[in-house]
Amino acid sequence: MFKVLRTEGNARRGEFTCAHGTVQTPVFQNVGTQGAIKGAVSAQDLKELGCQIELSNTYHLHVRPGDQIVRAMGGLHKFMNWDGPILTDSGGFQVFSLSSLRRIKEEGVYFSSHVDGRKIFMGPEESMQIQSNLGSDIAMAFDECCENPSPYEYVKKSCERTTRWLYRCKKELDRLNSLPTTVNPQQMLFGINQGGTYDDLRIQHMKDIAQLDLPGYAIGGLAVGESTETMYHILDVVLPHAPQDKPRYLMGVGTPSNIIEAVWRGVDFFDCVMPTRNARHGHLFTWDGIRNLNNAKYQLDENPIDERCSCPVCRNYSRAYIRHLLKSGEMLGQRLAVMHNLWFYNNLMTQIRKTLDDGDFAAFRAQWSDRLSRRI
Amino acid sequence: MFKVLRTEGNARRGEFTCAHGTVQTPVFQNVGTQGAIKGAVSAQDLKELGCQIELSNTYHLHVRPGDQIVRAMGGLHKFMNWDGPILTDSGGFQVFSLSSLRRIKEEGVYFSSHVDGRKIFMGPEESMQIQSNLGSDIAMAFDECCENPSPYEYVKKSCERTTRWLYRCKKELDRLNSLPTTVNPQQMLFGINQGGTYDDLRIQHMKDIAQLDLPGYAIGGLAVGESTETMYHILDVVLPHAPQDKPRYLMGVGTPSNIIEAVWRGVDFFDCVMPTRNARHGHLFTWDGIRNLNNAKYQLDENPIDERCSCPVCRNYSRAYIRHLLKSGEMLGQRLAVMHNLWFYNNLMTQIRKTLDDGDFAAFRAQWSDRLSRRI
Repeated sequence: MFKVLRTEGNARRGEFTCAHGTVQTPVFQNVGTQGAIKGAVSAQDLKELGCQIELSNTYHLHVRPGDQIVRAMGGLHKFMNWDGPILTDSGGFQVFSLSSLRRIKEEGVYFSSHVDGRKIFMGPEESMQIQSNLGSDIAMAFDECCENPSPYEYVKKSCERTTRWLYRCKKELDRLNSLPTTVNPQQMLFGINQGGTYDDLRIQHMKDIAQLDLPGYAIGGLAVGESTETMYHILDVVLPHAPQDKPRYLMGVGTPSNIIEAVWRGVDFFDCVMPTRNARHGHLFTWDGIRNLNNAKYQLDENPIDERCSCPVCRNYSRAYIRHLLKSGEMLGQRLAVMHNLWFYNNLMTQIRKTLDDGDFAAFRAQWSDRLSRRI
Repeated sequence: MFKVLRTEGNARRGEFTCAHGTVQTPVFQNVGTQGAIKGAVSAQDLKELGCQIELSNTYHLHVRPGDQIVRAMGGLHKFMNWDGPILTDSGGFQVFSLSSLRRIKEEGVYFSSHVDGRKIFMGPEESMQIQSNLGSDIAMAFDECCENPSPYEYVKKSCERTTRWLYRCKKELDRLNSLPTTVNPQQMLFGINQGGTYDDLRIQHMKDIAQLDLPGYAIGGLAVGESTETMYHILDVVLPHAPQDKPRYLMGVGTPSNIIEAVWRGVDFFDCVMPTRNARHGHLFTWDGIRNLNNAKYQLDENPIDERCSCPVCRNYSRAYIRHLLKSGEMLGQRLAVMHNLWFYNNLMTQIRKTLDDGDFAAFRAQWSDRLSRRI
């Protein structure tokens, strides 16, 4: 399923195959929370933007329209008309960050829906059942994501429970995949490493979950309160203990610099709402840094967002026009900005892969890592 | 500039040529108020949706980003990256409907901006100057649009002033077009017929403005409070007095039925926010009638919005998916709905032109006029 084609230091150039195709890694997953990309971007648009793999949110789709509806419509691929790979998160992160009145028990989590306050229970089995109904290519394990910093003893107990939950996830997904009516019988399970900012907990947890020999492993619980240096430190500490022949996915990260630095440390998969969210606020990624189109100096600027960019937006529209649209509250402004930023991230990964292919990634990192995240 | 290719009763199949191309009539102008279509639809999208001519709003662009900005950016065509024909309204309708604290004088209208309350004056000369800065192909005369019903004496005086304003518009646009720095020296002026619901005022005003021999004439002041029957009656009364060799534009109308009925009476140009506004609320035009996607019965409906439609949305997405997007507040839902409705309107005009070409429009009208506006 995963093949490392080439390495440079700890960085890896790979190829990952799942039911809906082969993904070239390192890869950035484009986030479509509710079965659509924020900013009026469709599945067809994603193809044009160079997206290899789409990520949808289990919790959101469970609440609305309901995973039973998506299943009845033939699964998420058919529902949203995307025939490429899809990864679904477990719902855990949203349960812990969006819902109110939650109670964590050994069996799972009791919480209230952020939409209508309805009481919901989600445990490992429910998460797998929902993700099975969605029919994604990669299902993520149901885990607890603790904010950083959290007390050592709490994180330790949480990790141990997350490990027990992982065994239950695997058992339940194996069962679901063997049912004749399952949407995607080749659905894979990725485990998630937790352990907060504690080196020993991180390492122990990674060793524990590595024993299940899953097709992939994520690093969760980062970019949730700790410093960037701490995040890099945890990656340095834990990745040597992750299986070398499986893809590693750093969840919810990050800036272009974060991505370059994490690839350097051996990460293969990424996802982040940053390109879409920043775009909607007028913050555009460029090879010169992050451009804030709200700035008055762009009012008469005929140039594209990024002179070095060949995305469909930069080929057709000026900074002045997109700025006007954003200022006027025209949805088209958000759409164009989101399209540019997604293209930028997808293209960034293409450049990273190219330099890894050529053995030039160290030079690429030295040239761009700081530059891409500066504000211009 | 305008050629009637064929007639069927009072209906006309024509061809209108302006600086940015030739338009086949009858035609529906796609409304992009602030230099973009509501619902994240771009100029490139308009091409794909069969739009022949785009309409932008002078008042909105004057307030934001400012017509001087658009002029400095090379005019509206370049600013929004649309190389086809553009018509701009005069700003008059918005001044009378959106602004507060307005005072109408012989010289023009004093009012406050709906964005920041700033005091603005707009008269015939200012309207022409703004439209000249935008560089549209067709500039509309600055007029007063009275709501229906209004007192006879008021409408009579208003019409007379609108006629005097029209002379000032023509004089000012002639001057602007002769300047060496003008954005579009071939900009045309269309006059606007007013007269409320009073037959004699409508006829007298049309005769008065026809004397200027302008390249086109609009019927304004309809669909502003009167019944549909009254609107059709006014068209029956006034169109025989409109120049036969010039296009007639029914402003702000309407439903598919209204359009078919108005074409039948001799109208060539239309515009309306109905396809975009209805789409954003989940109301989709189909050849079976108007479908309300908010209805629960579409929750599991795999069919496209309209089985007979070959638009980019109906080729790719189900009613259930678009309903989910609209219910979830995903912009993509609005975009897909708007795209479908605009395609529907543009395709409706294509069918009208085809049946006029074939001498079958009476049969088309009998088959579709009532049906298309029913709710299903």
